[in-house]
Amino acid sequence: MTVAQYCSSTMPTTLAIASSSVPSVCHDTSTANLLAARAEFVALIGSERTTEDPEICTSHSGSKFSVAAPSHKASIVLYPETTEEVSSILKICWTRSIPVTPYSGGTGLAGSLAATRGGVCVDLSNMTKIWNLHESDMDVTVQPGVGWMDLNAKLEGKGLFFPPDPAPAARIGGMIAMGCSGTNAYRYGTMKDWVISLTVVLADGTIVKTRNRPRKSSAGYDLTHLIVGSEGTLGIVTEAVLKLTPRPQNSHVAILPFSDTYLAIETAITIMSSGEVFDAVEFVDHHSLGAVNGSGLFPEKWEEVPTLFLKFSGARQATEAHTELIKEWAKKNGCHNIRITSDLKQGQAWWDVRKLMGKALVTVMKPGDIFFGSDAAVPRSRLADIIVESQKATENVGLFCSTLGHIGDGNVHVVFFCPGEKRALGEKLIEDIQRMALRMEGTITGEHGIGLSLRDMLIEEVGHAGVDMMRKVKLALDPKCILNCDKVIRMEA
Amino acid sequence: MTVAQYCSSTMPTTLAIASSSVPSVCHDTSTANLLAARAEFVALIGSERTTEDPEICTSHSGSKFSVAAPSHKASIVLYPETTEEVSSILKICWTRSIPVTPYSGGTGLAGSLAATRGGVCVDLSNMTKIWNLHESDMDVTVQPGVGWMDLNAKLEGKGLFFPPDPAPAARIGGMIAMGCSGTNAYRYGTMKDWVISLTVVLADGTIVKTRNRPRKSSAGYDLTHLIVGSEGTLGIVTEAVLKLTPRPQNSHVAILPFSDTYLAIETAITIMSSGEVFDAVEFVDHHSLGAVNGSGLFPEKWEEVPTLFLKFSGARQATEAHTELIKEWAKKNGCHNIRITSDLKQGQAWWDVRKLMGKALVTVMKPGDIFFGSDAAVPRSRLADIIVESQKATENVGLFCSTLGHIGDGNVHVVFFCPGEKRALGEKLIEDIQRMALRMEGTITGEHGIGLSLRDMLIEEVGHAGVDMMRKVKLALDPKCILNCDKVIRMEA
Repeated sequence: MTVAQYCSSTMPTTLAIASSSVPSVCHDTSTANLLAARAEFVALIGSERTTEDPEICTSHSGSKFSVAAPSHKASIVLYPETTEEVSSILKICWTRSIPVTPYSGGTGLAGSLAATRGGVCVDLSNMTKIWNLHESDMDVTVQPGVGWMDLNAKLEGKGLFFPPDPAPAARIGGMIAMGCSGTNAYRYGTMKDWVISLTVVLADGTIVKTRNRPRKSSAGYDLTHLIVGSEGTLGIVTEAVLKLTPRPQNSHVAILPFSDTYLAIETAITIMSSGEVFDAVEFVDHHSLGAVNGSGLFPEKWEEVPTLFLKFSGARQATEAHTELIKEWAKKNGCHNIRITSDLKQGQAWWDVRKLMGKALVTVMKPGDIFFGSDAAVPRSRLADIIVESQKATENVGLFCSTLGHIGDGNVHVVFFCPGEKRALGEKLIEDIQRMALRMEGTITGEHGIGLSLRDMLIEEVGHAGVDMMRKVKLALDPKCILNCDKVIRMEA
Repeated sequence: MTVAQYCSSTMPTTLAIASSSVPSVCHDTSTANLLAARAEFVALIGSERTTEDPEICTSHSGSKFSVAAPSHKASIVLYPETTEEVSSILKICWTRSIPVTPYSGGTGLAGSLAATRGGVCVDLSNMTKIWNLHESDMDVTVQPGVGWMDLNAKLEGKGLFFPPDPAPAARIGGMIAMGCSGTNAYRYGTMKDWVISLTVVLADGTIVKTRNRPRKSSAGYDLTHLIVGSEGTLGIVTEAVLKLTPRPQNSHVAILPFSDTYLAIETAITIMSSGEVFDAVEFVDHHSLGAVNGSGLFPEKWEEVPTLFLKFSGARQATEAHTELIKEWAKKNGCHNIRITSDLKQGQAWWDVRKLMGKALVTVMKPGDIFFGSDAAVPRSRLADIIVESQKATENVGLFCSTLGHIGDGNVHVVFFCPGEKRALGEKLIEDIQRMALRMEGTITGEHGIGLSLRDMLIEEVGHAGVDMMRKVKLALDPKCILNCDKVIRMEA
């Protein structure tokens, strides 16, 4: 046989794979198989870290903020404590073809926690070790069950901090899985920018360390960033070396209320284009501040107008210069009630209004209401457009609408509540906002991920070719599709 | 057949794949096949963009700074101008199983250009379009043949710039392929931080757009960063949307000579740990400055001692504060001849000494000398150690040694020249330095990539499991191994 004949007889004619022809969802969740697996898990980690409690199994699959059907439920929840235990668990699941859903903080919003195929949930919340804090290298090693707020509490006295700031209860494992971010992303970037290396357990239990510990590396494919944001579908992260950075000194918070969304965003764009370093640039709309006032959660009453929340820090001379610049830029766009504080307590109190907005919004929810939140991100020049158009679309159907923006990233959350009987209306509205973002060359998800809920819309964003490329990678690393099956990409028609 | 039986009969028992068992290097470079392909290329892009000139074929495979055996030579070099042309070329090569080596600026150092399997070289240097410059979004779309210096020249009047600054002749395509960086990486990060989205042609000609245009996205796997640094082995980049940032204003350059490497590095670590924003922190050793003085390329004579080169910029008040801080930190470590300038011309002249160091070093080369350069990066706390130990190791065998460091990243280049007859000595020395970096938890390559020369050493860095994970991804996206075969990962024993 010639080379050409050999090639043509053994090689595919195209890379394309239709989801209808994927042969890989190959699970055995029969009672007999699960019982036998359970015995192996108990032998491995003991019965006290192996549970079949139905309430625990249900609560691990979602929350009122995250999609999960009643049938989405693992049969067994396991609490490993080491990389080796996770590896042994995955070896058992791989050999027995049992689907696995990883779990850490449980704050995900896109349905990534839903155990769509039953099987096993691997809860990483016992893995809370923090070690190898290298102060002069500014890095630290953590297990995936560490909460980012706990990590920062531990770093308090060291003059260092870890910037990504998603939901307060989020833990490192889920933050890596979802490629999360938060208000600090403006200056510091998202989770992907703060991970130096990962220890990952692949579907068959293989342990991979993606990289060594220098800040920069060109050593082969970027496995670290292939894992960040892959939503637990390619491997389970069991250790992470995280970058740290000096804790901001002499921190200032500024509150800038505007008469109009466009003027607020124009000011933000001036700030971003200046080249000066600011720490965070956030947008809060009038409805959200109305909810804050109504909630009674915060002592102060807020002017109910489109408002920018800024943070900046640094040497005294620099912050003085930045204070003057902010005043100049804000005034130019008609903002007169400028408040800037360098008092830490006052700054924190103001910033809490932005960070704990979720709590204020929930007070607007009525019994039976469903929570809807969009996560679109657009190029900065389209920010005001997507905010105003989303508000209009929501108000047009008579719903309360809050818009909150991580402006530096062009990421806008439109949050609304919809009576249970109008679920279809809410779902359509969210899709309308997502398509609006796509028309503006944006993304359907800036930081919450694809999970279950956005899989089909993902095709509208990166095309069949893009989704197919992801599917190829998924099948290469998890041919049985045991790891968080059905998330990000459909593996069956 | 039960599910379990089906799974066990069709599924692999492990993800591991030994390079000896990879069935995928499946090429046909027979004269008949290449002749037939050539006719198709000419029909596609014309004979003026299709060449078999032996000199051109040879010069595309390497340089005196990059590994390439005489047999590493493409048979045909093609000059496509659009994504569609690259796609059509790859469809022909895929169907005919012809290996393909991509080429843009030709400045790579690790052997990624070597056409180890012959076949076709796709030269992207005709693809020099720059379009969709969005000033308020601070992004721009470019073809891969655009040089970063040309891009910055075009942005000059707009107040914007593109930070990655590798070799002056480097072009965007190769910069993406190699995940390059340069002196600006200290403040701005590496190439991966400046790519918003990519248009990539996969092995079979499929065109994938990895992402839309917002600054931030969680839309599925991070295909963009899977491609960045993959050295042309997973796809050919035909368009890139790049981030831009405001051009630094009021730029300052500081020169700090120290009596000792440890004092220089200690000062650098103080600067990095301060939390203040500086633009670049570079280290140059005494031998390098000796070469500068000897070269006659620069008008000024330099003190031949370990020296820090700094850049910083910003509002007047901030640079004044930074000037004072630098003086304080440098004096504390015994640096008295502190020179700081805000004069653009003077600053550029000083910075050129660092940026054009390669030219000065080449003047030290004797006829018949072989160029060797290491690219290790270590955690910052080990920087002084690797510099001093590399110098000792090189001087011990009687060779001239220059060490240059991108200190912010822990990346140190040790450059030496070795008489042709002592090649083995040079190769061993480079390996010694790389293993030294690994013992310090570092990487064998901070920015130059794996190419041909570091494939086996890569296993020492990320283990067989890590390399196997890369190989799985490679095989998933290029099962015939036609794209830059043999680079990064061995595909045959």
